[in-house]
Amino acid sequence: MTHRQIVLQSLPQGDKLSLDHFALKLAPRPTAGPGEVLLQTRYVSLDAANRAWMQGATYRSALNSGQVMAGGGLAVVVVAHVPHLQAGDLVFADVGWQEYAVLPGKNLSKLPDLKPETHLLSVFGIAGLTAYFGLLSCGQPKPGETVVVSAAAGSVGSIVGQIAKIKGCRVVGIAGGEDKGRWLVDELGFDAAVDYKSADFKRRLRAAVPEGIDVYFDNTGGDVFEACLFAMKNFGRIACCGALSQYDGAPPPHGPRGIPGLIVTKRLNLRGFVVMDFADQQDQALADLQSWVADGRLKVKEDIVEGLENLPAALIGLLAGENRGKRMVRV
Amino acid sequence: MTHRQIVLQSLPQGDKLSLDHFALKLAPRPTAGPGEVLLQTRYVSLDAANRAWMQGATYRSALNSGQVMAGGGLAVVVVAHVPHLQAGDLVFADVGWQEYAVLPGKNLSKLPDLKPETHLLSVFGIAGLTAYFGLLSCGQPKPGETVVVSAAAGSVGSIVGQIAKIKGCRVVGIAGGEDKGRWLVDELGFDAAVDYKSADFKRRLRAAVPEGIDVYFDNTGGDVFEACLFAMKNFGRIACCGALSQYDGAPPPHGPRGIPGLIVTKRLNLRGFVVMDFADQQDQALADLQSWVADGRLKVKEDIVEGLENLPAALIGLLAGENRGKRMVRV
Repeated sequence: MTHRQIVLQSLPQGDKLSLDHFALKLAPRPTAGPGEVLLQTRYVSLDAANRAWMQGATYRSALNSGQVMAGGGLAVVVVAHVPHLQAGDLVFADVGWQEYAVLPGKNLSKLPDLKPETHLLSVFGIAGLTAYFGLLSCGQPKPGETVVVSAAAGSVGSIVGQIAKIKGCRVVGIAGGEDKGRWLVDELGFDAAVDYKSADFKRRLRAAVPEGIDVYFDNTGGDVFEACLFAMKNFGRIACCGALSQYDGAPPPHGPRGIPGLIVTKRLNLRGFVVMDFADQQDQALADLQSWVADGRLKVKEDIVEGLENLPAALIGLLAGENRGKRMVRV
Repeated sequence: MTHRQIVLQSLPQGDKLSLDHFALKLAPRPTAGPGEVLLQTRYVSLDAANRAWMQGATYRSALNSGQVMAGGGLAVVVVAHVPHLQAGDLVFADVGWQEYAVLPGKNLSKLPDLKPETHLLSVFGIAGLTAYFGLLSCGQPKPGETVVVSAAAGSVGSIVGQIAKIKGCRVVGIAGGEDKGRWLVDELGFDAAVDYKSADFKRRLRAAVPEGIDVYFDNTGGDVFEACLFAMKNFGRIACCGALSQYDGAPPPHGPRGIPGLIVTKRLNLRGFVVMDFADQQDQALADLQSWVADGRLKVKEDIVEGLENLPAALIGLLAGENRGKRMVRV
């Protein structure tokens, strides 16, 4: 019995990620030993962080060439050698880009029954929780404040902006292209959108936040981060979630201007976070997210690509900003 | 009746501050109108921020050429047209670099009687309070943690390190030159010092903090900031107090590398502050500082230069790192 895997054939060395870095392979289907669980992958989550893992150690160890590409996903338990799981249970796990995976059972927990199950990877998964904790715990927005989010049409950004609206804020999304901007305003209820690819991006940003930014939720780093830094109000907060602009290519030789000078003079608070840090508050977050989705105030946008073999192209496309909302691949 | 003033004859334009930017002038001695107070300057405080004010608006408006150079100082009330002050009272005020100043009385308050009175400008003044609030409120050090402070031999840094020792931390000071380092360790009780001018500064820093930095108190920005950023532990805190390395010359074209990437992966918290933000907590801070000075755990180092005419040279020297502890000029 074999199964399909996508292997990271080589690591990009300062170049952009391409299909050549991946290879599709057949491997023997693994079997679960004592304490282990055999999982069948249903959906693989695609995240900009997948690319960051190729640059070196982050909050997880660096990836190596030759290994199955890492990635989280929604999987169903096939065989469970632990008492707390049984065949048919759904779990979120670090399955990697493959059809089957064997993992230690002790860190896995059964997900709730919930339809559509893809929401377990989007709004009720890492994307939704990242948006929730980053905005509310790190950003601490107050009603009437101006919140700006970058990569606003992405899985996290699209939820950040909607939660900020629910909390009574004025919300400006930064995204690439006029189409995405219209979608953010017309469909998701953002107050304004700014196209970071426009020639006069900085001027447009300043026009969209005439009184300055109270909370900036940063998914991108780089020039967009710098532009927002200069537009912050005194005592503003920056939730540092990711650095999408920095992942796919050579690491930048320098950081944004204004650091640390503007942090001091504007008394800013910059806080980096990873969603796992808030695991103890997850129940409350999920209850809030579920109630907002149920009453229609939080719209869920998913971008589901079919077929394991399309994972590399789906990730490359995500890094290029193809997707709206949460991108995942059905295996 | 005339008095002496030092006027900012021209603003440095991306060049280093020099004596040519200043001029000594005689002006008519001012008189106090209704609600005003006539002050005689005793000591002018010298601070790296004086130079930053020449670069543009910060937490105060920018300086202009032709005006009396701005600066805080310890002054004695000569004439008071307000009920809460009387002749002979000592105040801290934005007197500027001149022998006499007239200011609105409403923002001035009488300082306590305390000997030596110069301590009102150093440990019980802005330097001590900046160290206290920046370290304890922004840095939140816990016993056993590693605290690193830059410009460690300066007015703020020398107090930061000593307070961190009082709080049970391991303390590493970054300062220019081996002499300053020995002084920090032998006289002030720092655990180690690192010379940022040494060719292998980064390696020495890493050796001095083998487990990484929990709290970095940044007075300098620039390369020292970057080196510390890379040496931070997960969940570390950076108190952003100033950017001394950036004030005297052209503004740097870029910020430190690793922003915002390292903020995210290490879950750092960077917070900028200005001492005025903590005015409501000043009484507790002064009580703590006074008790530490009284019982000998906090040593006060002052560097007193004589004569108003020496203010420009004293500031230029401070920017070059001449001083140890709080520099001020006796007028």
